[in-house]
Amino acid sequence: MSYPASYAPLADAEYYTVEWLAPGVLGVAMNRPPLNTFNRANWLEMHRVFKHIPTDGEIRAVILYSKGRAFTAGLDLKETALSDAVNDSIDAARAGLTIRAIIDEFQAAISAIEECQRPVIGVSHGYSIGLAIDILSAVDIRYTARDVTFSIREAAIGLAADIGTLQRFPKIVGNDSLARELVYTARYFDAEEALRIGFVSRILETPAEALSAYFTSSDRANLDAAIETAKIIAANSPIAVTGSKTALVYSRDHSVAEGLHYMQLLNAAALQTEDMAAAVMATLQRTKPTFSKL
Amino acid sequence: MSYPASYAPLADAEYYTVEWLAPGVLGVAMNRPPLNTFNRANWLEMHRVFKHIPTDGEIRAVILYSKGRAFTAGLDLKETALSDAVNDSIDAARAGLTIRAIIDEFQAAISAIEECQRPVIGVSHGYSIGLAIDILSAVDIRYTARDVTFSIREAAIGLAADIGTLQRFPKIVGNDSLARELVYTARYFDAEEALRIGFVSRILETPAEALSAYFTSSDRANLDAAIETAKIIAANSPIAVTGSKTALVYSRDHSVAEGLHYMQLLNAAALQTEDMAAAVMATLQRTKPTFSKL
Amino acid sequence: MSYPASYAPLADAEYYTVEWLAPGVLGVAMNRPPLNTFNRANWLEMHRVFKHIPTDGEIRAVILYSKGRAFTAGLDLKETALSDAVNDSIDAARAGLTIRAIIDEFQAAISAIEECQRPVIGVSHGYSIGLAIDILSAVDIRYTARDVTFSIREAAIGLAADIGTLQRFPKIVGNDSLARELVYTARYFDAEEALRIGFVSRILETPAEALSAYFTSSDRANLDAAIETAKIIAANSPIAVTGSKTALVYSRDHSVAEGLHYMQLLNAAALQTEDMAAAVMATLQRTKPTFSKL
Amino acid sequence: MSYPASYAPLADAEYYTVEWLAPGVLGVAMNRPPLNTFNRANWLEMHRVFKHIPTDGEIRAVILYSKGRAFTAGLDLKETALSDAVNDSIDAARAGLTIRAIIDEFQAAISAIEECQRPVIGVSHGYSIGLAIDILSAVDIRYTARDVTFSIREAAIGLAADIGTLQRFPKIVGNDSLARELVYTARYFDAEEALRIGFVSRILETPAEALSAYFTSSDRANLDAAIETAKIIAANSPIAVTGSKTALVYSRDHSVAEGLHYMQLLNAAALQTEDMAAAVMATLQRTKPTFSKL
Amino acid sequence: MSYPASYAPLADAEYYTVEWLAPGVLGVAMNRPPLNTFNRANWLEMHRVFKHIPTDGEIRAVILYSKGRAFTAGLDLKETALSDAVNDSIDAARAGLTIRAIIDEFQAAISAIEECQRPVIGVSHGYSIGLAIDILSAVDIRYTARDVTFSIREAAIGLAADIGTLQRFPKIVGNDSLARELVYTARYFDAEEALRIGFVSRILETPAEALSAYFTSSDRANLDAAIETAKIIAANSPIAVTGSKTALVYSRDHSVAEGLHYMQLLNAAALQTEDMAAAVMATLQRTKPTFSKL
Amino acid sequence: MSYPASYAPLADAEYYTVEWLAPGVLGVAMNRPPLNTFNRANWLEMHRVFKHIPTDGEIRAVILYSKGRAFTAGLDLKETALSDAVNDSIDAARAGLTIRAIIDEFQAAISAIEECQRPVIGVSHGYSIGLAIDILSAVDIRYTARDVTFSIREAAIGLAADIGTLQRFPKIVGNDSLARELVYTARYFDAEEALRIGFVSRILETPAEALSAYFTSSDRANLDAAIETAKIIAANSPIAVTGSKTALVYSRDHSVAEGLHYMQLLNAAALQTEDMAAAVMATLQRTKPTFSKL
Repeated sequence: MSYPASYAPLADAEYYTVEWLAPGVLGVAMNRPPLNTFNRANWLEMHRVFKHIPTDGEIRAVILYSKGRAFTAGLDLKETALSDAVNDSIDAARAGLTIRAIIDEFQAAISAIEECQRPVIGVSHGYSIGLAIDILSAVDIRYTARDVTFSIREAAIGLAADIGTLQRFPKIVGNDSLARELVYTARYFDAEEALRIGFVSRILETPAEALSAYFTSSDRANLDAAIETAKIIAANSPIAVTGSKTALVYSRDHSVAEGLHYMQLLNAAALQTEDMAAAVMATLQRTKPTFSKL
Repeated sequence: MSYPASYAPLADAEYYTVEWLAPGVLGVAMNRPPLNTFNRANWLEMHRVFKHIPTDGEIRAVILYSKGRAFTAGLDLKETALSDAVNDSIDAARAGLTIRAIIDEFQAAISAIEECQRPVIGVSHGYSIGLAIDILSAVDIRYTARDVTFSIREAAIGLAADIGTLQRFPKIVGNDSLARELVYTARYFDAEEALRIGFVSRILETPAEALSAYFTSSDRANLDAAIETAKIIAANSPIAVTGSKTALVYSRDHSVAEGLHYMQLLNAAALQTEDMAAAVMATLQRTKPTFSKL
Repeated sequence: MSYPASYAPLADAEYYTVEWLAPGVLGVAMNRPPLNTFNRANWLEMHRVFKHIPTDGEIRAVILYSKGRAFTAGLDLKETALSDAVNDSIDAARAGLTIRAIIDEFQAAISAIEECQRPVIGVSHGYSIGLAIDILSAVDIRYTARDVTFSIREAAIGLAADIGTLQRFPKIVGNDSLARELVYTARYFDAEEALRIGFVSRILETPAEALSAYFTSSDRANLDAAIETAKIIAANSPIAVTGSKTALVYSRDHSVAEGLHYMQLLNAAALQTEDMAAAVMATLQRTKPTFSKL
Repeated sequence: MSYPASYAPLADAEYYTVEWLAPGVLGVAMNRPPLNTFNRANWLEMHRVFKHIPTDGEIRAVILYSKGRAFTAGLDLKETALSDAVNDSIDAARAGLTIRAIIDEFQAAISAIEECQRPVIGVSHGYSIGLAIDILSAVDIRYTARDVTFSIREAAIGLAADIGTLQRFPKIVGNDSLARELVYTARYFDAEEALRIGFVSRILETPAEALSAYFTSSDRANLDAAIETAKIIAANSPIAVTGSKTALVYSRDHSVAEGLHYMQLLNAAALQTEDMAAAVMATLQRTKPTFSKL
Repeated sequence: MSYPASYAPLADAEYYTVEWLAPGVLGVAMNRPPLNTFNRANWLEMHRVFKHIPTDGEIRAVILYSKGRAFTAGLDLKETALSDAVNDSIDAARAGLTIRAIIDEFQAAISAIEECQRPVIGVSHGYSIGLAIDILSAVDIRYTARDVTFSIREAAIGLAADIGTLQRFPKIVGNDSLARELVYTARYFDAEEALRIGFVSRILETPAEALSAYFTSSDRANLDAAIETAKIIAANSPIAVTGSKTALVYSRDHSVAEGLHYMQLLNAAALQTEDMAAAVMATLQRTKPTFSKL
Repeated sequence: MSYPASYAPLADAEYYTVEWLAPGVLGVAMNRPPLNTFNRANWLEMHRVFKHIPTDGEIRAVILYSKGRAFTAGLDLKETALSDAVNDSIDAARAGLTIRAIIDEFQAAISAIEECQRPVIGVSHGYSIGLAIDILSAVDIRYTARDVTFSIREAAIGLAADIGTLQRFPKIVGNDSLARELVYTARYFDAEEALRIGFVSRILETPAEALSAYFTSSDRANLDAAIETAKIIAANSPIAVTGSKTALVYSRDHSVAEGLHYMQLLNAAALQTEDMAAAVMATLQRTKPTFSKL
């Protein structure tokens, strides 16, 4: 198989291009021109894509990026689910019930990234506004192209960020003061500030002009470093990698004592794997181990 | 109204100067010469000030700073509530009950900052010792003058920091090793180290000489950048800004899943706001939206 | 007493050299040549050492480091407790019960560092692989020699890090994206990257050649800065210092509100100490206070 | 409409008969002769039924019962999902991942009862074994026919009850000692013991002979009391009833303080309902209020 | 002093009659004829009464009951705080903020009973509707006159019970099925059913005719058994009794492990009491110990 | 082997008689005449006994009872660890640290019952005072002889119950009002009241006279019913039984959602057991299954 190679189980996706970028490395590209904004169909499809991933043992690492000029410019202004809920309800109490159901569905789409049991590397570029921060906060590893424009946009438009930014963003950066400034002011911030705050861990260099045309293929150049990282992950023990993600997510949300106890249970099964024997054997033979799929 | 302008509801405060610094931006200045130390009357008044703030829908952002040579040098050594508790009690058990009541009252004063439902920008300068760290850890955004001297002083004086530093400080900085060093050694640290660790997000430049005189007005020069930030916040949707603070505080203390569920409930009411319509209208008309007070 | 001076209560340890490095400053050196790897006897002894520490009121600060070429290269490959568990069990369910018991015992050894009620400064050098990160994540303050090689090795060997790294590491650094990259890739990282991410707070300079010989004494040169920090801690109020550690660990794992309430209870007893009077007296007399042992 | 009346949206269910039993009262009858055992298709269909319920504002209360001789005799022995997981996997670690996915899906089916936002009255009769307790523990109100045979069967068949009994059963009864005896011994218990322990709150009398024939319609006689209760619920304010269920489930799993805070958020929207005005008006006019559907 | 005796510090209460009923036993009687309904002034005063109690070391037990025909019939229909909030707000989002503030204030009044650090015995009679259950769920020990009519009324009036019933009621009774039936149906229940479910632990007999007149003094006859219990409590060690209440409330809301750790901290101070010596001495001398006030 | 039969691994216990009472059923009898009071040596030995139990796969159920006239009369008045801590310390803060360490050790002894991974049936008789309730609250199943005298004694002796009663007792009974009355009054209660409240689930009948002599063997008569129950448990799948206990303890202390997720992990290993196959085979062959030891 030469790469990129098409990925049949999700070939029917309308707003996503899903391909193998390397052995075990699945690329998920948002692809709703021009700005990858989100309507309900889009978030339902994102949910479907990431719910599928843990069912395929061949997938070992995922790269999430976007086709076109923007990672995503956020909510599609033509999406009316929320305003319909208010307008069609008898009273504010009943409208509130509908709003909760819509947000629940939307949050579930983003949380599916966190629950997909495979490391996800997010690569952003261009406009990465509003919902972009919700999505990027849910991936594991964040790289960005230098030409990025981030903004936690919600305070400017009367909408507390509700799809995951307020919950995850402050826990992944190391400067709570700056994080709150970004939330309350809704101001733009660039790649360097994102790096300094710890939101991204690497800035990728891409020729600026390559991004000037509509629906450029240049995003893929941005992916080189991400693919290299993903290939290293894909060559590691899939049992250890998926167990690590499960434990990292659990530990973030629990005390250390609870996290340690959880690890005992997780490893009661996970350590009964042939991967450990393969690794020891490879070490003794000074070769690289090969691990079976999940 | 020209700014600063007096703020009538808190004009009777003994140790605080409360003024409008800009439209919607309330300045709260600690003002107990010479070093803004805290006796019981002072912390009770701080409690009163910050309990008042969420009751006034005109207030959209708060700046907390100090008049005089120090942000605060900490506890007033003449404050005897704690030693009286020990001396006046029949036994250590009964003294312990009184100590708990005093600490509870004191903690409530500082936590009122966190619970005031408006973003608070803290601007420190000069001696910012002991209690200063408790207070600054409870604000949202931290700027500091370059002439600051920080210290988590308690380990040197036989008193585990108990008004919020140990609870909040490690969660707002990105270097736990250094945070613990500062706690255990009680050593001084300056603006640069505070910036590096992520305790403050901006260092403000003020002519050093301006600070040499007793009760200088120069602190206000320090406020320029803070006021600019506060004005941006004050122009955003107050429903979204207050909801964001509520959610940020809740999410810090809960799992991501709980934070997301909380957000659904919060937004069941919060999304039924005219602010969203105002923002959309402004976007279409390429104007700036105007949001009503809370 | 001249320093280093032997520490009698733990003189019988097989794999640990325990000495007074300064008044109140206990040095605990891992000493299992050549690479300080861990077999079961080693982790049981570590447990014993750190369970002893809180019972001795003379100990005020601890430095944990290693003799020889490596801080630790991780698990001893000849340790077979886990593989025996699998091989000797009737079925995977029963093997799982045994695995949980082994991990529980091992985790308890590392957590004893966190529970020892004294600040622990960890100083790493050379190979600091796998288990090294578990151990260092459990100390309070991390310094490292420049000649260090870190790696969270487990993903490469089929074993999700299960002795504390996944639980503690992301909570002590300020860059979740990089933390996860290190976990999933198992790649090496050096002192500079550890400093940038906030894993260590200081890099110590030691002549590289001094480390070239087997079982060098040069590690001790690395300790100078650590000893200086430890001496400052040892001179502070031991009631305040131990209370601070207790509260920091509790607060990391609880909400701010719970942390504050805990502090009230802790200080109901802890404030009834002569250390506060000693500190006030010293302040008035412009001398340094002397605090009694615990 | 005369009752029972067919319910079109779920008329295609294979193992469930879903009907209107009274206005607003939906009957969900398990119907997989002869003993209503569960294969995967059955639990997936249960999931679908209870996920549908909150989307229909006409439904105000649900009665869950069974056609035939048993409420349910538990897992269908021909269901092989779990054993296939073990047999088809490379090692115990990989089998463990598959087992977790299967249990997750199964638990989600039962938890859907708890999450369906409408009160569910469970009416048991005949064999109510194993899974029956998992299901009944997830409903709100439990009535039972006198001819019931309960058993928490799992300890006798090598399977810790894992679909909800161990999590919910001890929290809904008032005698932990007896609860644990029932779990560990797997012994049978009858309607009287279930009443005494608080597992059911009412025993319904039905002529024993009516139950002797295969696929009797007599279960429906059992439902009379349940339908009376359900009708009272269906006549109450649907906003208050659904809010109560949401709050009861949340409060069971949280501290009182958290439960109270949650209630504030829930009611911020829920109190903005016309139901309150309708109730006040009816009180003044000494009539019964009529509440709109959700 | 002969009993009842007036209690000066709360003699100015408008809706409460506060008296000493026995040494150390404070009676708090709701007294707002005719039916002790609650307007805002009433709940603010309840807050003040119970916030005062922990500040008076002479008070060792509290009895909460009512003057007149009803314990309380619930919310005063003339109280308009909630409807004003909706009517006076610009939009539902802003109304929601006000509603939350009102509920917060109201909940704080009821929770003050739980936080008052003294055992509270609640004695109900007559109409004990709606808010009555919220209040009774917050006391420690519940006795009732036989002539009581309970109802969790909220589902019938469009209002999920939000002042504490849904949070506390299911945790204090032993029959979750019946608890939920009472919540969803809003039906009346009597003393016997309350006893069976474990909501009250004793039924007090009072001549029915004595209750027939308006504003009867007969309630006090109901108090005899409660006073006997309170006197036993008042004669026990006040340090142990207040510590027990603190620990019971904490333990209800936390895991057993957390509860045990909390107890260690609580007793670090609480065991340093002369009460233990007094008790031992009395045991040896076969006398009754006398304990000092708090 | 005829029963009772001596149990070699714990034959050296000073205060405990440990015997096989039936196949797989271990009897642990407290045996410190005359009243089984607890000094430090006693609670350390209890710790040792119950820490041993999970290491022996032959043990499937445990019965905890006492030799002599009392289950236990509580703390040995000659035990001075707590008073020594106060008397030997420099100040109340340092005494507090020692008190916490003693309570921690004592609590660990009682909690070892809960953590021993085997069902424990407690059988009480005679004086069952103070510590007796702490111990009984930590077992799984409680039977009592009719001649029992219970009391939560601590409020009468200046000591909040701190070894587990306040944490566990209210969670295992179904009447919070009565539970609190028993705590605050320290009054005696008998077998019938214990049964009614749900503290014990069965009253065993033994001739009263048989208990009149010192060190009677009659307690063993009390054990008959307990042994019957234990034998049923011992014949069930040990994997399912131990997994059930682990899950019950976990679920008591966590939300239902957390409990369900925990169960997934637990069963990822636990379902890979031959016990399930053995049970299915036995069902088909209409025989009783035989399960291997752990």
